[in-house]
Amino acid sequence: MEKPRIYLDNNATTVVAPEVKEAMLPFLTELYGNPSSLHRYGAETRVHIAEAYDHIYRLIEARDEDSIIINSCGTEGNNTVLQGVYHTLIRNGNKREIITTNIEHPSINTCLTHLAELGVEVKYLPVNKDGYLELETLAAAISDKTALVSVMWANNETGVINPIEEIAALCHKKGVLFHTDATQAMAKLPVSVKSRNIDFLTYSGHKFHAPKGVGALYIKAGIKLPPLLYGGEQMGGLRGGTHNMPGIAALGAACKIAVSGIQIELTHVKALRDRFETDILESIPDVIINGKGAPRTPNTCNIIFKGVEGEAVLWDLNEEGIAASTGSACASGDERASYVLSAMKLPPELTHSAIRFSLSRYTTAQEIERALDVIRKTVRRLRSISTSYK
Amino acid sequence: MEKPRIYLDNNATTVVAPEVKEAMLPFLTELYGNPSSLHRYGAETRVHIAEAYDHIYRLIEARDEDSIIINSCGTEGNNTVLQGVYHTLIRNGNKREIITTNIEHPSINTCLTHLAELGVEVKYLPVNKDGYLELETLAAAISDKTALVSVMWANNETGVINPIEEIAALCHKKGVLFHTDATQAMAKLPVSVKSRNIDFLTYSGHKFHAPKGVGALYIKAGIKLPPLLYGGEQMGGLRGGTHNMPGIAALGAACKIAVSGIQIELTHVKALRDRFETDILESIPDVIINGKGAPRTPNTCNIIFKGVEGEAVLWDLNEEGIAASTGSACASGDERASYVLSAMKLPPELTHSAIRFSLSRYTTAQEIERALDVIRKTVRRLRSISTSYK
Repeated sequence: MEKPRIYLDNNATTVVAPEVKEAMLPFLTELYGNPSSLHRYGAETRVHIAEAYDHIYRLIEARDEDSIIINSCGTEGNNTVLQGVYHTLIRNGNKREIITTNIEHPSINTCLTHLAELGVEVKYLPVNKDGYLELETLAAAISDKTALVSVMWANNETGVINPIEEIAALCHKKGVLFHTDATQAMAKLPVSVKSRNIDFLTYSGHKFHAPKGVGALYIKAGIKLPPLLYGGEQMGGLRGGTHNMPGIAALGAACKIAVSGIQIELTHVKALRDRFETDILESIPDVIINGKGAPRTPNTCNIIFKGVEGEAVLWDLNEEGIAASTGSACASGDERASYVLSAMKLPPELTHSAIRFSLSRYTTAQEIERALDVIRKTVRRLRSISTSYK
Repeated sequence: MEKPRIYLDNNATTVVAPEVKEAMLPFLTELYGNPSSLHRYGAETRVHIAEAYDHIYRLIEARDEDSIIINSCGTEGNNTVLQGVYHTLIRNGNKREIITTNIEHPSINTCLTHLAELGVEVKYLPVNKDGYLELETLAAAISDKTALVSVMWANNETGVINPIEEIAALCHKKGVLFHTDATQAMAKLPVSVKSRNIDFLTYSGHKFHAPKGVGALYIKAGIKLPPLLYGGEQMGGLRGGTHNMPGIAALGAACKIAVSGIQIELTHVKALRDRFETDILESIPDVIINGKGAPRTPNTCNIIFKGVEGEAVLWDLNEEGIAASTGSACASGDERASYVLSAMKLPPELTHSAIRFSLSRYTTAQEIERALDVIRKTVRRLRSISTSYK
């Protein structure tokens, strides 16, 4: 008999919610018209764009006059913002610097490496040992030459939350554009642009129960940003390409259920995660929970079992049907130690022992119980054969 | 009783094939793992990438060593090629020119307008009155400063086919990179990169019965092209962003059925289209079929009914449940005359009368019969009240 399987890697990707799948299906069958077409087939799909957008705007409290571009993923959104600001303020302006942190997603880091080749000065600010950017660090870094500050809302590996509202307010006060990659915060925390201090916000649908292949980019009203995908007049000329109707409907549905889902995250999911951590701390010695001193997303637990390799633990868990990860799936196959944990000043012998467990609204108390059993046995077994653990 | 509806706008978008929808469904339900994840959830989705790629490579006869990036649409592919060649050969090389035609898709034209601002010299070559680029025109235009030639395989409005094999061979001989936007040719004609003269080829899935939101970019082995979407190591580092598994599976399935579907296009669809045109030419006076003197895709008929506005005809057809278009859906809402027909030297009073009918493998003889009846009545009625038709 196959063991029951337990998915604790929701920061890598999530299951598509049944409501989301249902919302997509008409666009994979009878509602196939191109919404840019003037005939009835076009009109009958077109109306559903507005319906989806209602939920998409509501979730982040955007105003009607703001723009939200529906695109293919968080990576596309991040590239659109960084490359776009390069064209508007750096190539065609008198700014020359972009400020970010040393814990961002590869779509920020590799894009900035490209922009550095074009002459952009890129400043990577350190986070503190709890894993977030301190306001003072940013305040000291911003100068007249700064075009953009880009700071992720919550980190994918640790779940640690940056003080985004304060950072955004500081940028606004200093007259510098502010972008946040909210991919790991969406639908886990209240993520809002209501303060009017956030200029650009990006996210990906598949991190909160929409399918892979759809994401969004919020642009505050009045802020100019050129397209990354030049083309037709879709998305108000801000992104060419035929509207991805199944994706748009899916994102709308995911945003709709996220409005209530955030409460589930903050209560049910957080309670399970906290109980998971408490149990581990009480039953396994020599454990560190990364970022525990900082505000974190309610679903994420990044944990070090001293003296054992994270990959060895994952192997055993996988054999038992339990999925977790050592860090970002986007950097899998990459043998380097986690740059996020290194940024938090953890030495390599500890970062190699880190594992990320990430829960979702679908995670159950029974699953957590069983995962705890397996983890205890696994860590005990691996430590018993470890040369570095005594 | 609602009238039976007839969809004759397949160049704008197509219905998702039932086989394609079925291929996607597992990735909207149980197969939700991120293929970059090392655990079982990742592994069990990862295997399906190779399966889809088999069909995707086979359809265009690519070799294993070539790259095919699965992306979000044809517009993304076109932007990736044009912006990428700018970075490799123009910004970082000694070339300075891109050559294209005056009948390309907006994703080529608007991207080239952007690149012109960056200093790229863009040459728009004229097509002949049949609507295709003559080899001599191109041969005379290519020079030492040419970095890239970009010519669409078949035109979206007229279906006219450019002599792509000859153009590619000429570019190869002259040592110039060659890109073709094959969006309107895919699955309607044999589209192959077997000659090894095509360096880049782009297309969009939703034009041949995959859903909206997925496309592909072929890059010949040995040709370097930087990403447009910088990010993780997905797609061999050529495009960041979590793999769009539902889209990848859908594209694979669409390519699989296209292998046999091309024969259906060349026989069944072509026979219906030819019969449609013959009937119109025999039963309605003062008609021009655009591009009739040139090789065309088997599904497309672009037709001028002299003395009536194309939009007026479409309105009447729409009321009868029949969908066609005046041109590109990507330029809908745009009041300009078709730039494609203008490029074929048709005067404005004729281009305003043009309508595009585009069939698919799902079009039936009964639908064509009924459409012909409605068209005949509509043209007669509109001409009877036309001030310009006598």
